Parts: sequence; C-alpha cells; structure tokens
Amino acid sequence: MPKSSKPIAVVLISGGMDSAVCTALAQADGFEIAALHVNYGQRTQQRELAAFQAISDFYGIDLRLATDIGYLAAIGGSSLTDFSVSVSKANLSSREIPNSYVPFRNANILSIAVSWAEVLRASAIYIGAVEEDSSGYPDCRKIFFDAFERMVSVGVKPDTHISIRTPLINLTKADIVRLGSELGTPLHLTWSCYQSEDFACGECDSCVLRLRGFARAGISDTISYKSDVQRLNLPK
Amino acid sequence: MPKSSKPIAVVLISGGMDSAVCTALAQADGFEIAALHVNYGQRTQQRELAAFQAISDFYGIDLRLATDIGYLAAIGGSSLTDFSVSVSKANLSSREIPNSYVPFRNANILSIAVSWAEVLRASAIYIGAVEEDSSGYPDCRKIFFDAFERMVSVGVKPDTHISIRTPLINLTKADIVRLGSELGTPLHLTWSCYQSEDFACGECDSCVLRLRGFARAGISDTISYKSDVQRLNLPK
Repeated sequence: MPKSSKPIAVVLISGGMDSAVCTALAQADGFEIAALHVNYGQRTQQRELAAFQAISDFYGIDLRLATDIGYLAAIGGSSLTDFSVSVSKANLSSREIPNSYVPFRNANILSIAVSWAEVLRASAIYIGAVEEDSSGYPDCRKIFFDAFERMVSVGVKPDTHISIRTPLINLTKADIVRLGSELGTPLHLTWSCYQSEDFACGECDSCVLRLRGFARAGISDTISYKSDVQRLNLPK
Repeated sequence: MPKSSKPIAVVLISGGMDSAVCTALAQADGFEIAALHVNYGQRTQQRELAAFQAISDFYGIDLRLATDIGYLAAIGGSSLTDFSVSVSKANLSSREIPNSYVPFRNANILSIAVSWAEVLRASAIYIGAVEEDSSGYPDCRKIFFDAFERMVSVGVKPDTHISIRTPLINLTKADIVRLGSELGTPLHLTWSCYQSEDFACGECDSCVLRLRGFARAGISDTISYKSDVQRLNLPK
C-alpha cells in the first residue's frame, strides 16, 4: 500500500530508456510511483526485468509489480516472441510495420495498468510511447492512447478517474536522450536491444533508434554493445 | 491454423451459459470458431476450464487457447480472486457494484482476444456480456464495448478489421435460457457459480441470476446444486 499522501501514478517501466525518462517525469509531476513491468515472453525478458528493478531501485520505488503475460508468446505473430522468426535488421526508411510488432501489446499492458490503478486508487498511468520517431507500431500512436483513455472512462467504477499520460509521444529519441540527461535519468541502467541480453546487438530497430538518438543528442551511450557498433555508419 | 475457408471469430468461452449461447450464435452466423478461455485466478477456475473444454468439444472446435492472467489475482480488489474476502450473497435489488467485480477484467480479456484475432486474421470477437440483467459491472455495458471497438480500430494494423459482438447484451437471463434451449446449447455443460466447484452454491449473484433465469423461462436447470437450493424462494 502507498506510503505517502501524494497522488499515485502507475508508471509502465519496460526497462528501456523511454520508460526511465517517464519515471523521472512522473516523479517531477509530484506522484508517488507504482512501477509496473510486464514480461510478454520476449527474447530479452530477463535483461529487461533486471533493468526494471535497477530503475525502480534508483528512484526508491516501493510499489512494484512484475507480471507475466506469456500468452502473447503463445499467440505469436512477432519476431520478439516467436523465436523461429529472426529479428529484422533495422530499416528506418521503410514504411512497413516491422516484424517486431507484437499484436495489440500496448492494450494488453495498459489494461493491466488500469486494473492495478483502480485497486490502488491511482489517478494516472504513464507510458513512454513515442510516435514520431518509432517503428510505426499502430498502438504507439496518440490516436490509440486517446481512444484507450475514453474506453477506460466507461469501463471502470464511476468514482475511478484515470488519465493516460504519454509525455514523450511527440519527442524524438534525441529529445528523449537530452531530456533524460537533464533530469538525471539513469540511462546507463536501461536496456533497449530486442535481440541480446549481454551485449546490445546494435543492429535491430530498437538499438539503431537508440544509437541514433544518442548520436544526434551528442551524448555517449555507456551500455555495452557488440564490438565496433558505436563506430557504425548510423543513419542521421 | 484454421481448417476451413469460413471467416473466423474468436469467441470468449468462460464456461458459463452466456458464453455457450454466444458460441451457438457465432456458429449460426457462419464463423469458424476460435475458442478463447482466460483463467484469472478466480476461485472456480478449474471447474470453468473444464466447462470450456466440454463446450468446445460439443461444438467440435479445433482452435482453442486457454490463457492465464494470474496477475489479476495478485492485483486483487475482488472477492473472486482475493480469497480473504467472502463472496457476498446475492442482493439483486442493490444498486452498488458487488465485491465480485474484478477491476477492468473485460478489457484485459478482450485485449488478449484482439491479439489472437489479429494473428488469426479473424474478423469478429464474440463476448456473452449481459447488461440489463447483470450485476452492474461497468465493463459489461454496451457503452464500454463500443468504446473498446473504437480503440481497437486505431490500435491494430491498418488491414486488420475486428468487430466486437455482444449479441446477448440486451437480453435477460430468462431470454438467454430460452434462446439456448432453442439453439440446442448444452447448458448442462456450463458452470456459473462463483464459489464452489462441485455443487453450485445457489447463493452467490451468479447462481441466483442463473436460477432466476431458468425459473422465469420455465425450464429446469440440470446442473448440481447444494441440496434444497432449487426450492429456494427466488426473487421473481
């Protein structure tokens, strides 16, 4: 149960840098944070769970819930959960939705957040989704989150009021790196790679977006990559 | 994978009679059925899972997925998943939402259905929710399902089109018993009790709604109740 009289926000902490910056913003907004992590049977789930715990430790968060929705792996349809399909190398100029798309993942994750928020009497849910500089996933768009918020308003008890906050939605990865740096966010504790748990591959969409963000922000990324990646010729 | 060229519908089969009647309706509508069951850590989950399998066997359904979202029990907030809270005896005249309400359960369940539907290229999801003659749960109302459908339309790939169908939403339990009887639905294979897995208690909201429905339809319920329940003085 909460330890303070502050309003509570459930913050989705995947372990990636967007979620870490979101945590910093929720704290700055005056909320006590309830940290929610969701394993969905993805390749790198142990590494992401470790990043979730490290970020939660850094922010001194007591309310933590790590859940498991392994059924998304059983359902399949994504290279992140179906290990017979390779994670594609990044192609940021493509207009196709990449095979890393996990069908309707964010609705599954947000629904868990709402269930928990209703029990905790939390008034907000923070999710670090990025529309502008993302991989084109349909459930990372502002239009989706707005529709989700409307659905929540008619799906919970009348005295429950929960806003869905997406403070990074219009930022680029470079903006997020800069903002995280200004806020003292522990970006070195975060994990983005879709493929590997020891050294980031530097080749998947998520790694390339991260590396390009750091490069454009003029800040160096201190997590461990496979050798030579930092010297790759990244798209500008 | 589907065995026919029929369009596919994901049907949520909890094991209760509403979901069995929904299955009959989806079949009558010409769909190949993909049967989805969701355990959510409720008291009677083994009995409901058995009913799901029995109903699926009856309808010859090959596509079956039984998932587990035990995190709803960890989140708590309901007498169905928190075993330290007693399931209330029915009080159908109360305007309060009863303590059996599981926070935002239907959004969690429907999100799983949409993920599966997207992978199967299904065009519809059937859920046997009942608004008129239910316990007042906010996520059993038409307004919620309509908002959910709008959210789905902007949260999946552009070539995915999924309708959320609630064919029982305006029926009473008596209507459902009559309809099930007309359609040859195996109501004797279904389970409704919130409390017990061997003999239905006859006292919880769900049992009382079921018994009243059969009584008003003038049809006898052949599942096993604790002794004397069938002779109880049910609300008319």
